[in-house]
Amino acid sequence: MTTITQMASTSAIDIPHTNASVYRGKTIEQKANRSVQRIRDTKYRHVFATHSSTRTSCLSQDTESSPSFVGFRNLMILVLIISNLRLMMVNLQKYGVLICLSCHDYRRSDVITGLLLYLLVPAHLFVTYSIELAAAWQANRAYKRILKERERDDDTPAKYAAALRSFNSTWYIVAFFHSVNAVANLYIATRYVYYDIHHPGIGTLCELHAVIVFLKCASYALTNRDLRHAYLHPKQADPLPQLYKTCPYPLNINMKNLCYFWWAPTLVYQPVYPRTDKIRWPFVFRCLVELAGLSIVIWIASAQYAAPLLQNSLDKMLTLNFTSIAERVMKLSTISVFCWLCGFFALFQSALNALAEVMRFGDREFYGDWWNVSSIRTYWTTWNKPVTNFMRRHIYSPLVGRGCPPALAQILVFLFSGILHELLVGVPTHNIIGVAFAGMMFQIPMIALTDVIQKVKWIQGKVAGNMIFWVSFCLVGQPLAALLYFFAWQAKYGSVSKQFQESPAMNIFHRR
Amino acid sequence: MTTITQMASTSAIDIPHTNASVYRGKTIEQKANRSVQRIRDTKYRHVFATHSSTRTSCLSQDTESSPSFVGFRNLMILVLIISNLRLMMVNLQKYGVLICLSCHDYRRSDVITGLLLYLLVPAHLFVTYSIELAAAWQANRAYKRILKERERDDDTPAKYAAALRSFNSTWYIVAFFHSVNAVANLYIATRYVYYDIHHPGIGTLCELHAVIVFLKCASYALTNRDLRHAYLHPKQADPLPQLYKTCPYPLNINMKNLCYFWWAPTLVYQPVYPRTDKIRWPFVFRCLVELAGLSIVIWIASAQYAAPLLQNSLDKMLTLNFTSIAERVMKLSTISVFCWLCGFFALFQSALNALAEVMRFGDREFYGDWWNVSSIRTYWTTWNKPVTNFMRRHIYSPLVGRGCPPALAQILVFLFSGILHELLVGVPTHNIIGVAFAGMMFQIPMIALTDVIQKVKWIQGKVAGNMIFWVSFCLVGQPLAALLYFFAWQAKYGSVSKQFQESPAMNIFHRR
Repeated sequence: MTTITQMASTSAIDIPHTNASVYRGKTIEQKANRSVQRIRDTKYRHVFATHSSTRTSCLSQDTESSPSFVGFRNLMILVLIISNLRLMMVNLQKYGVLICLSCHDYRRSDVITGLLLYLLVPAHLFVTYSIELAAAWQANRAYKRILKERERDDDTPAKYAAALRSFNSTWYIVAFFHSVNAVANLYIATRYVYYDIHHPGIGTLCELHAVIVFLKCASYALTNRDLRHAYLHPKQADPLPQLYKTCPYPLNINMKNLCYFWWAPTLVYQPVYPRTDKIRWPFVFRCLVELAGLSIVIWIASAQYAAPLLQNSLDKMLTLNFTSIAERVMKLSTISVFCWLCGFFALFQSALNALAEVMRFGDREFYGDWWNVSSIRTYWTTWNKPVTNFMRRHIYSPLVGRGCPPALAQILVFLFSGILHELLVGVPTHNIIGVAFAGMMFQIPMIALTDVIQKVKWIQGKVAGNMIFWVSFCLVGQPLAALLYFFAWQAKYGSVSKQFQESPAMNIFHRR
Repeated sequence: MTTITQMASTSAIDIPHTNASVYRGKTIEQKANRSVQRIRDTKYRHVFATHSSTRTSCLSQDTESSPSFVGFRNLMILVLIISNLRLMMVNLQKYGVLICLSCHDYRRSDVITGLLLYLLVPAHLFVTYSIELAAAWQANRAYKRILKERERDDDTPAKYAAALRSFNSTWYIVAFFHSVNAVANLYIATRYVYYDIHHPGIGTLCELHAVIVFLKCASYALTNRDLRHAYLHPKQADPLPQLYKTCPYPLNINMKNLCYFWWAPTLVYQPVYPRTDKIRWPFVFRCLVELAGLSIVIWIASAQYAAPLLQNSLDKMLTLNFTSIAERVMKLSTISVFCWLCGFFALFQSALNALAEVMRFGDREFYGDWWNVSSIRTYWTTWNKPVTNFMRRHIYSPLVGRGCPPALAQILVFLFSGILHELLVGVPTHNIIGVAFAGMMFQIPMIALTDVIQKVKWIQGKVAGNMIFWVSFCLVGQPLAALLYFFAWQAKYGSVSKQFQESPAMNIFHRR
């Protein structure tokens, strides 16, 4: 018996796992061969101790090191792809192909009005320019008078006070003309879009164009006002940005400078912008290809998937069946977030970059990484930098500078932004129902909420804040707003607008 | 004019972004206050250079540093949750509640046969024990004879050869009885399950129990064969594992040792196992709660979601409409992978850990992190360690040890595993159609494929391999196999098995 216990006391037979994944590089085959050799050298193959030590399961709570879960991320991506592919197949079986190149659902008069607006709206920018030209002429005269008086050593405080009074009274006149011009621009465009352009797509484009020109006019007027003040009060003035040195007031009030600002991808006027050295045409070409491709994708997604979905939702909205409305909103959310992401990339990355490249406009920060935001506040300051820059420079900063509390200034910015959103959505759909405005106002409590939540550590505040952002904005806010405006549209025009009824999509709904 | 250019040459006005997210900790308010103060100290608020430098968009290809995309991961999780919640709502609207506590769809005789099998199958383990007891008695006698001959210094090679011959002839007899016993176990269980147990669930449990006892019998016989050989040939023998020292052959052939192996969560016999010091009853309790909870979840998921889906797919299978079959398989894949994950956790984490804790069984490595595998080979060696350990110790190693090429040995292991899979799926569903077997055989080319792919660097081989694993196994293999066996079941029994028809689920399908 002793011999056996002696035998057993020598080292355990260790047959390594032949798991191929643990071997790397050149030695895989060598190692495998060695492992096979070791098995062959062993006399007893049925006795080695498989269970040789105490170990925990890797998913147990008492395990030392948690395993990686990267595989589940891959599974998640696959499930997403497969479930959406399935929905596309179901959609195709149910409705057939709804995309139709030759079906127009817009009126001839819509296109003509739209083109006229497209040509006439920029005229207001030239009116702004004329006003500034007159103001610059007046300032030039005042400047020469000041210089002359300085030569005569008549540099008394009383004279300065008179100059300031003169500047202010001129500014009131200039500001009045600017306001009339800018408001007229917005009013005329809105009036024509609301009453004369039936098609919501064309209407949105016209209204967007008018709003952009409105903001550019405002920025041009306000910036030149400060520049003129600095020009006339060189002693009191704050230093101006280094960048503007190459084009001082009033030299910047010229046609070329205005036209650059007209086409530059920004809403904020600067006499001088950072510029690139040359136009990279291959870059422009790639951007345009992206833009075209994404536009087609969005068109297919909305015609084939979003349109039937919105139509299907109508009767559910009418019966006020909340479970069904929730179900429709959920289904709409995926397609809406998809279109939103495509649209964002097409507009803010491809289109603006192509335009900036052609204009040799240097600052391409049209957006930040808004998809990672943990606070809704950060979302609104990063997703649309051109508008954020405008709001910060021409509304927030002046308000705060005049003593307005920052919180109130932010609320006023959202109020202004809410009005613009309602103009952009309500006017082209001919339903100023205030949902877009209310949506913007709703951001204020959401900002307060996520500002607090993102700082809570024990619930992973950053992730929670990001989730709240996605839920509130892309998964609830957008599809719900789309449903409400679509419902309002249908309530006003029925499903019976003549052109729309003739489209194959409508035939299917009538057959249902 | 000079004064202005001098002015402009001083430093640019820098109004910082009031973006709250860039401020951290206590100083948030201080910094915000300072920023407000700076705005108020500035005279001109409409002129600061928003565009002060050349910057790229963060999604452009020419950007220096790519932004994080963690927000899109969160969006993906949300879309997954929302789309599945939506499917649950649609299912509930379409079918109502299909879960029913009082509806039995199994026969009384099924339960009785099942219980009888549950009690009788372990008897084969005791037959194995009896055979080993006899063999140990015979070995003990032989050992004493050897000792006596050694005392008489009659230690010649001829004597040893005789002893080996005697050992081998005894082993042939022992092996014959073991084989008869083990095959009889499998045959009896399979016969009763196939002919007498209609309900596939009860049938699967019985068949699984029989297969486990079959493997335990085989491991007990084979391990003790090697231990006996080492006992009788102390000079030629390889050293035995250190762990077995406390219980040398033939002391391990006793009732208590066998009963421990009977209940231990392993298929591999060792005279001694690593043990824990005490039973942590709270741990056992938590495992049992998990097991119960997950069982309920799986039951709900299969009754409410999988069963109607499988029923819906029947007519699509009949018409051989491949697009529709693909659509059904895709829809089934999500629910099937969900049930699979729940079932895996319930069985391999909760149930086996609870059993191991009660048995004070130390080695809890019942599975590895198979969800991260980049090769299908690794999947099969990590997801089910008890079976892998059995295969490695009692099939692969002996085959390789006897000179069989490793690749052939692996194929033989899959062949054996394929037969067991077909037994476990085909027999309880009364359709030995070979899909499970073919599925296992199909793993061999898949292993060869992913072994190559995971090493390809330029397509991120690891991720690609993991994706192939998920697609082939959980998203195609499983739902397709489930559909085929369900279809074969329905083809054999129609949708008209009496009990099933009476269940509320069936009424809905008949109403359709």
